[in-house]
Amino acid sequence: MILSDNIDPDIVKQLSLEEKKQLCEEIRAFLIDSVSRTGGHLASNLGTVELTVALHSVFSTPEDKIVFDVGHQSYTHKLLTGRKEGFSGLRSKGGISGFPRSSESEHDAFIGGHSSISISAALGIAKAMELEGKKGNVIAVIGDGALTGGQAYEGLNNVSKLSNNLIIILNDNEMSISRSKGSVADYLTRMRSSRSYYDKKAAVKDFLSHSELGKEISKSISGTKDLVKFAIYQSNIFESLGLKYYGPVNGHDIGKLIEILEIAKLTNEPCIVHVKTKKGKGYKPAELNSGEYHGVSAKKNPARKAATFSETAGTALLEFAENDEKICAVTAAMKYATGLEHIAKEYPERFFDVGIAEQHALTFCCGLAAEGMLPVFAVYSTFLQRCFDQLIHDASIEKKHIVLMIDRAGFAGEDGETHQGLFDVPMLTAVPGTAIYSPFDRNTLKLCMEKALYGEDGVAAVRYPKGACQAGIRRRYRDFYHSGKTCGKLIITYGRPAQYAHDIPGTDSLLLLKIFPINSEAVDIATGYGEVYFFEEGMKNGGIAEKFLCALYERGFSGKYHITAPENTVGAADIETQLADAGLDRAGMEKRISDE
Amino acid sequence: MILSDNIDPDIVKQLSLEEKKQLCEEIRAFLIDSVSRTGGHLASNLGTVELTVALHSVFSTPEDKIVFDVGHQSYTHKLLTGRKEGFSGLRSKGGISGFPRSSESEHDAFIGGHSSISISAALGIAKAMELEGKKGNVIAVIGDGALTGGQAYEGLNNVSKLSNNLIIILNDNEMSISRSKGSVADYLTRMRSSRSYYDKKAAVKDFLSHSELGKEISKSISGTKDLVKFAIYQSNIFESLGLKYYGPVNGHDIGKLIEILEIAKLTNEPCIVHVKTKKGKGYKPAELNSGEYHGVSAKKNPARKAATFSETAGTALLEFAENDEKICAVTAAMKYATGLEHIAKEYPERFFDVGIAEQHALTFCCGLAAEGMLPVFAVYSTFLQRCFDQLIHDASIEKKHIVLMIDRAGFAGEDGETHQGLFDVPMLTAVPGTAIYSPFDRNTLKLCMEKALYGEDGVAAVRYPKGACQAGIRRRYRDFYHSGKTCGKLIITYGRPAQYAHDIPGTDSLLLLKIFPINSEAVDIATGYGEVYFFEEGMKNGGIAEKFLCALYERGFSGKYHITAPENTVGAADIETQLADAGLDRAGMEKRISDE
Repeated sequence: MILSDNIDPDIVKQLSLEEKKQLCEEIRAFLIDSVSRTGGHLASNLGTVELTVALHSVFSTPEDKIVFDVGHQSYTHKLLTGRKEGFSGLRSKGGISGFPRSSESEHDAFIGGHSSISISAALGIAKAMELEGKKGNVIAVIGDGALTGGQAYEGLNNVSKLSNNLIIILNDNEMSISRSKGSVADYLTRMRSSRSYYDKKAAVKDFLSHSELGKEISKSISGTKDLVKFAIYQSNIFESLGLKYYGPVNGHDIGKLIEILEIAKLTNEPCIVHVKTKKGKGYKPAELNSGEYHGVSAKKNPARKAATFSETAGTALLEFAENDEKICAVTAAMKYATGLEHIAKEYPERFFDVGIAEQHALTFCCGLAAEGMLPVFAVYSTFLQRCFDQLIHDASIEKKHIVLMIDRAGFAGEDGETHQGLFDVPMLTAVPGTAIYSPFDRNTLKLCMEKALYGEDGVAAVRYPKGACQAGIRRRYRDFYHSGKTCGKLIITYGRPAQYAHDIPGTDSLLLLKIFPINSEAVDIATGYGEVYFFEEGMKNGGIAEKFLCALYERGFSGKYHITAPENTVGAADIETQLADAGLDRAGMEKRISDE
Repeated sequence: MILSDNIDPDIVKQLSLEEKKQLCEEIRAFLIDSVSRTGGHLASNLGTVELTVALHSVFSTPEDKIVFDVGHQSYTHKLLTGRKEGFSGLRSKGGISGFPRSSESEHDAFIGGHSSISISAALGIAKAMELEGKKGNVIAVIGDGALTGGQAYEGLNNVSKLSNNLIIILNDNEMSISRSKGSVADYLTRMRSSRSYYDKKAAVKDFLSHSELGKEISKSISGTKDLVKFAIYQSNIFESLGLKYYGPVNGHDIGKLIEILEIAKLTNEPCIVHVKTKKGKGYKPAELNSGEYHGVSAKKNPARKAATFSETAGTALLEFAENDEKICAVTAAMKYATGLEHIAKEYPERFFDVGIAEQHALTFCCGLAAEGMLPVFAVYSTFLQRCFDQLIHDASIEKKHIVLMIDRAGFAGEDGETHQGLFDVPMLTAVPGTAIYSPFDRNTLKLCMEKALYGEDGVAAVRYPKGACQAGIRRRYRDFYHSGKTCGKLIITYGRPAQYAHDIPGTDSLLLLKIFPINSEAVDIATGYGEVYFFEEGMKNGGIAEKFLCALYERGFSGKYHITAPENTVGAADIETQLADAGLDRAGMEKRISDE
C-alpha cells in the first residue's frame, strides 16, 4: 500500500508515475469503502483523485495554497495531508469536516462549503502574499457548476489586473449537482469539442517560448495555415477576460495533468487550466448516476423511510400547480433535492432551473410576479442567504408576491457549520412585509403552503427541516395551536421541535405555524402564564423568541421567560445529536423545565 | 417647444428625425436646469437622452417593457411618460422617485435602485409574458458598470434558453460611478476598437436574411476574404453566451440608434445592442468630470460645509494605514463616495477597487485576512446587503478579522426606499462573532475605527451616517456614554440620533458606541430606570432596541420600555424630514417622552 496512514505530499512527490497511478487506485478504493460507511460526497470526490495527486506532485502546500470551490472535491486532498485516520469520523461530531477548513489543517487555504467563492478568496490570498513578499502559487479549483454563480465571474473579472501567481483549475465534469445549466455550460461543451488540438499546441508553444531554443522550435512548427486556424479558435471566454488558457486536458490522465500543471506553474501571468473529469470515476453506480451519488448517507437503517419534507413539499406543489396555471417553480441547481422534479416533469414550461445562481433566481421570480405569475423558489435555507438584498430591493419594496419553499431550515446535520439553516428567520424578519410559516409535519406543511400561496401578498416563506416528514395529527389549526391552559408553564416553539413539545409533563404548549409577524392572539395566550419557555431551532439573535418577548413585554407580561436557541455556529453531527446538544429535543426540553 | 407638459410616447413616434433631434436638445436643457435645482443624478441621465427617445420611437410601453438597470438612466424615460411636471418634486417627499418604480407608473416595468438586476428581472417578465400569450419586447438597459456585478452574468447565463423577445441594451459609457474596473471593461474597450466595421456588416446581413431578396444580396456582398475576417472577429463574449450581438453604435446618433433598435426588434432571438454613450453629454462640466456630477445635491446652502462622515473616515483610515502596513482598503466602485481616494493615492498597492461586485469584495477581504493582512471594506449600508452569505460563510465561521466601514447607515435621504441604510444592524447581529460600532461625531468615529481595527478579532463594523460630521465633544468614552443618573427616565440611542439625545429635559441619556454585542454594564445602568426610551435609526425588527429589551428583561427589569424605530420602508425626502417623520430628531424625542 502506498496509501499509508502517514502519507504526505512529500511522499507523493517522490513517487514514479506508475506509483502515482497505483496511489490513485488505492485512494479510489479507500474512498468508496470509507464514504459508503460514513456517508459523504462520493461522486465529486472520485472525480478529482488524479487532479489532486497531480496538484500535490507539482505544488507544495502550505506554501502554495489550494482553494477548493465547494469542498465536495477535497477528500483526496485531505487524505494526502495527514487526515487519513480522520476519515472514520468524517462529517461526524468532533470528526473531520466534509469541506476544507483552515481551522482543521494548514493545508486547507480557505473554507469551502458554499459555491463560487474560490476565485475571490484565492485573489485575496495571492495579493496578500505578494504584499508580504511571500513566494508561492495560489490555485483555485472550481467546478463548471460553481462557474454559473455570479461571484465566480466577479472574481474572474478582477483576476487579470491583480495577480500573476494565480492558477484557476476549471474542474469540468459537465454537471453541477444536477446537470449544469445555461450558456456557460453550452459554451464549455463547444470549447471542449473544438479546442483540444489547438490548445495543446498553444500550451506547448507557450512552454517552448520560455527559452531561446524553444522559440526557434516554436517558429519552425508554426505553418501559416495552422496559425489561421489558431487565430480563429484563439479567443475564448477566458482569454476575453485576460486569462491565459490551457486545455482541455483529460483529468484522469495523471501524466498529462502533471505536465500541464508544470506549464501553468511556469506561466508568469494568471491562467486557467481546463480539466475534464468524470464524476464518480471508477465506481460504476456513481458514474452512471452521479446525481444520486452526489451525497451518500451512512447506511445505518435500511428500513423503508418516511417521505422527506422536500419530497412532500414537491408533491404538494405539483398538486397546487395542477389547479393553478400561474404557479411557476424555480430552483438553483437543486431540482431533485428540493422535490421539484415532479413539477418539472409535468409542467416543464413552468419549471426553471437557473443553475447555481440564487440572486438571479430571486429577481427572476420578482420579474415573473411583476407580470402576474405566482413564482415559487425552492431553496435551501443556507443558500437563501445569497438573496438578502434581492429580497429587500426587488421583492419587498414594491410588494411582489413570491413564495419561498425554504428547505433544510434548522439543523442540517453532517454538512456542518457552512450549511446550517439557522439564519433565514433573522434575515426574513428584517425584510418588511414578509410572512413566515414553519410547519412540522405533512398536515401542517400543506396548510402552510396554501396560506403562503393564497393568503399573503408579499414575500411568503414556508420553511421546513431536512429529514422525514410524519403525517401528523389532523387538528383545526389557525396560525398556531394551543394545548389549552392547564397549568402555569408554557412551552412555545415552532418547526421541528414542535414534534417534541406537546405532552411534556407539567407544561402546556403553544405551537406556532405562522411564526412572523408575531400573532397577537398567541401573545395574549402566553401572557396568562407565569413561566414561558421558548425553544427555537435557529439563531437566538434576531430569532422569533426575542421578538415574542418584546411583544409579551408590551402586553404587560412579567413572568419568567427562558430562551433555548443556538447562539453560535453549529458543527457537523447527525441532526439528533445537534438537537440534543442544543437542548431542543424532548430530553432537552424536560431538562430545561426541571432546571429552572 | 416639442417637450410639452403633455408629451407622451405616441407624440414621440410621430416626430420627424429632425424633430427628435430638437426634442433631445430640449430634454437636455430641461434636465440640466431642473436637476441643478432639485438635485439628482445628472451625468448618467444626460448620457441616455437619445437612447431613450430612440427606445420610445421603436417600442411601445407599457406593452413593451423597459427595465432600467440602476435608474440613473431613466429621467428621460420619466419625462416622456407623463411625469414632466413631477420633476419639480424629484426625489423629495411625495414627489417622483429618482429611480424607476412600477408603483409610480405603468411605464416603469421594474424597480431600479440597485445594480445588475435588470437582466434577471427582464427574463422573468419576458417568460411570464410568453406563458400568458402576451406580445411585446422586453428591453433591459444596463450600463457597463452594472455589468461587473455577478448577478448580471447569472442573468446572461440564463438568457439564451429562456427568451426570444429579450433585448439587452449595453449602455457603455466606459465608467460605472468611478471608472469601470476589471477585465470586462478592458474587453469592451478592445471590442469597441475592433468590431465597429464587422458588426455593422453582421447586423446588416442579419437584417437582410429576413427576406429571400435579402439573402441574395447578402450572398453577393460576402467575399471570401471578408468571411475570414468576419470569422476571426465573430466570437465575442456575448456570442459565447448565446446572444446575437449588434454594435457598437454611437449612442448620441438618434438615427442610427433607431435603425439598430428596429433590427433588434425584428430579431427573433435574444440579442444585445452595444451602445456607446458619453456620461454628462451636452453639459461641459459634467462631461469633463462625470464622477463629480454623478449625483448633484440641491444648492440650498452655499456656505462651507463641515466634512462628511465619509471624508472623515477616509482620512482617518489613511492615518491608520500610515502606521500599519497590513491595512488594505477595498471598495466596490465607490472610491470617492466613501473617502478612500486618500489611501488610494498614498498607498495604491494596498487599495483595491473591484468594481460593482460586493460579494467578491467581501470574500476578497477574507482572502487577504487569511494571509495576515488587515482588510477594510468601505461600503454603503444598502449595498452590504449583497454580502450576507459571505459574512456568515467566508468571514464568521473561521473568524476572519475584517473591518467594515459602513457608510450611509441610517436614513439615506433623497434616494428613497432602495437606498436606506436600515438593514445592516439586523443583518450583522445575526452573523456570529460580529462587533458593531456606531459613532456619531468625528471624535467617536476615530475611536470606533481604532477599536474595530485593533480591539476585535472577527467581523468588526463601524457604521456611520450620510452627511456632515461634527467635531464632537471629547469625553472619556468606553463602549457607551451615560449622562449620570438624575431622574427616572432614560433615553438610549446610538448613531445620528445620539446628537439630539443629551440634555432633553427630564431625562438622562445612554449613548451606545459599541452597539453589539449588548454591553452588560449598559444594561445594568438601564435597569435602574423606571422608564426607558430607545430611539433607533434602523429597522425595529432585529434592531438593537429589541435585543436590549431582552437583556434588560433577563436582568429583572420591569419598567416601561418604549421603542421608536422604523417598521417599514422609508421613502425619499431630505434626511431631516425622514428623521422628523420617524420621531428620531430632538422634537420627536421630546414629544414621545411627553406623550407617554
